[in-house]
Amino acid sequence: MRPNTPLHHVVIIGGGFGGLYAAKALRGAPVRVTLVDRRNFHLFQPLLYQVATGGLSAGDISYPLRSIFQHAPHFSVIMAEVTDIDVAQRTILLRDGRLRYDTLIVAPGSTHQYFGHDDWATYAPALKTLEDALEIRRRIFMAFEAAEREPDPEKRRALMTFVIIGGGPTGGELAGTLGELAHGTLKDNFRVIDPAQAQILLLEGAERILATFPPDLSTKAVEDLTRLGVTVRTRTLVTDVRDSAVTTRSGDATETIQTSTILWTAGVKSSPLGEALATSADVALDRSGRVKVAPDLTIPGHPEIFVIGDLAHVTQQDGTPLPGLASVAIQEGRYVGKAIRQRLQGKTPLAFHYRNKGNLAIIGRHAGLADLGRWHLHGFVAWLAWLFVHIYYLIGFDNKLLVLLQWGWNYVTRKRGAQLITGRELR
Amino acid sequence: MRPNTPLHHVVIIGGGFGGLYAAKALRGAPVRVTLVDRRNFHLFQPLLYQVATGGLSAGDISYPLRSIFQHAPHFSVIMAEVTDIDVAQRTILLRDGRLRYDTLIVAPGSTHQYFGHDDWATYAPALKTLEDALEIRRRIFMAFEAAEREPDPEKRRALMTFVIIGGGPTGGELAGTLGELAHGTLKDNFRVIDPAQAQILLLEGAERILATFPPDLSTKAVEDLTRLGVTVRTRTLVTDVRDSAVTTRSGDATETIQTSTILWTAGVKSSPLGEALATSADVALDRSGRVKVAPDLTIPGHPEIFVIGDLAHVTQQDGTPLPGLASVAIQEGRYVGKAIRQRLQGKTPLAFHYRNKGNLAIIGRHAGLADLGRWHLHGFVAWLAWLFVHIYYLIGFDNKLLVLLQWGWNYVTRKRGAQLITGRELR
Repeated sequence: MRPNTPLHHVVIIGGGFGGLYAAKALRGAPVRVTLVDRRNFHLFQPLLYQVATGGLSAGDISYPLRSIFQHAPHFSVIMAEVTDIDVAQRTILLRDGRLRYDTLIVAPGSTHQYFGHDDWATYAPALKTLEDALEIRRRIFMAFEAAEREPDPEKRRALMTFVIIGGGPTGGELAGTLGELAHGTLKDNFRVIDPAQAQILLLEGAERILATFPPDLSTKAVEDLTRLGVTVRTRTLVTDVRDSAVTTRSGDATETIQTSTILWTAGVKSSPLGEALATSADVALDRSGRVKVAPDLTIPGHPEIFVIGDLAHVTQQDGTPLPGLASVAIQEGRYVGKAIRQRLQGKTPLAFHYRNKGNLAIIGRHAGLADLGRWHLHGFVAWLAWLFVHIYYLIGFDNKLLVLLQWGWNYVTRKRGAQLITGRELR
Repeated sequence: MRPNTPLHHVVIIGGGFGGLYAAKALRGAPVRVTLVDRRNFHLFQPLLYQVATGGLSAGDISYPLRSIFQHAPHFSVIMAEVTDIDVAQRTILLRDGRLRYDTLIVAPGSTHQYFGHDDWATYAPALKTLEDALEIRRRIFMAFEAAEREPDPEKRRALMTFVIIGGGPTGGELAGTLGELAHGTLKDNFRVIDPAQAQILLLEGAERILATFPPDLSTKAVEDLTRLGVTVRTRTLVTDVRDSAVTTRSGDATETIQTSTILWTAGVKSSPLGEALATSADVALDRSGRVKVAPDLTIPGHPEIFVIGDLAHVTQQDGTPLPGLASVAIQEGRYVGKAIRQRLQGKTPLAFHYRNKGNLAIIGRHAGLADLGRWHLHGFVAWLAWLFVHIYYLIGFDNKLLVLLQWGWNYVTRKRGAQLITGRELR
């Protein structure tokens, strides 16, 4: 490289798992990297449900993006919203500016969707951002507080009914942790109500929960959830969500459940940047709006554009796409960082290959699920495996060892120190 | 006590230091205790400035009130807002109910005031609640983010100018910590701006800052603040606060400072429950709206009503009232708890006597002030003293030892892990 030649400029959209690990893999490479994110922190999303249920604080699972690249002078971070991608000009458009790239990594993640019922969002918040988690935390703990002071038994019953819509991993985590909260943590906290009388309903439209796991583990998950006081209803479709009620249909039977806390974990929607690429670069999208990428994670006709993470539709050998998991995004990010280095050395990168190290989920204390291919684990061992993997990734983040201490403390004492009702003054 | 005699009912308004320590002192006494607070947590206010500056998370300095009294069956907690006190009926009125008491402890704390300029609150938030702290944190870190992307040098200068109004302990803490942030923590975090170029102004109307300390310590504080990059301006009155500007008058000179971050620490206002008592029980209020209490902290004519903490005007031997400090509220709370026990045993409690163990303030790393009467300490030793005292009180709160570890980690690495911009989406 001659002096004064401008460095190859890699722009990364999104500081989630995909974007972050791509950036890390580019450390020391002869490139200039600009990471663009709407937020100034990376969010460790697998633990977001812990914030929503008062086990951890917002700061425990967030990490300032600038700190990560503090000592990498060729790395910069921009807090901005990307509105469009102009592939012809090799430029991304920000709400308040534009940015030229030589190589672009698109890793904007996903958001939640209500399948055409956006009005449900007010009554049934979803869990995707830190603000979502704090709002859900407020609703959960406020419901118990209001129940303690509610003289009318029917209203009290609605206040102590929690409905979680969607039986995926997030729904399972939330339902299980709510069960622990009601039967363990909040024990003896109230004088009028008994938190153990809370009704926690997990509603799933399909025939089993945690459908990404083998059927035997789904069955174990239902057993564990039941033990934690959760009622699991499968083959149950939600037909209406209102202020304090959820209407369901199961076969021919419809039911309306009176409840003051409704949590939505049912739908994932791709980033609108998929549409932007479809318009600007003529890429194909799948039914969920994900971008169909080539085996090297670039888009057809544009080897300078990589799409990774939740927005990428990467076909596996069996024809199905890779799931939207942190582990997938991390491997894709690392691959892309390495591929860019190889190209700059004149090499052609091999195709991306996902190494499935197993699928993990957690339901509660001592209750985990692990699909390790040949081995299906559940209960304490799977819980330990889950903990081990999350410890492994978390310690990559600076002082987050303290989170483990916090966790250990919660575990021993069954307490949850962050059960604060914040965000709005009372009345 | 005969069986079936209803227990003497003590109602405590406020779960701050005064109310909490009164409740703790009543543990095991033959009474029923109801603690009423608008929030469901106790806030360790002396560390609130750490949340506002990204050093600690909200959960680190908050403690769920219900957990504290979990194992005390005669104690209950109600989350409600007290609107009035009917001393004739021995009843407190809630926004949504009422509550009879045999003994009442009024410890509602204080709020901030803008001396007739309530419109300033929008532009210059004050630091009293957790929400305040998160809003201030958002403004501080957002100002640096916006400056990094601002091409206009004058606007950039305004974004990197921080004005703190009020040179009391909170003003000093905020200014000093902002100085550390700009000169230490954020070093190498940006590529366009140099955070060390930030201008941090501490404005005080009186002739010296930290007026509750002896003059020599005020002088030391100015030296320490200057070393941290803070400009201290005394005898400077704020005459106007607008969207991005503060106008000051100093002698005959007026000046308008362009700034996008204005923090207000200048005024304290008593709880409106003081007025309620003045109307209902004919008590005398001082100029600040505090209730003038008898030597046993009750109000004249109503031995069943105690007023403690920031709302109480307790005259010292030299005629001045006790300051609104956590240490004062704690001693008053303990005294009242003990006094109630003594009365139930037929004894007459002695008058309240405040034991001044010294006055502490912190400005930054290694920079503290300690007025121990005969001894005036500053710098590292005073900083250690401050830390020791706060450790001592914090460890009374369950798992808050982790806060110390967090603090220690911040100290060693000079990092601040909780510098999140939350609460509002970008744009």
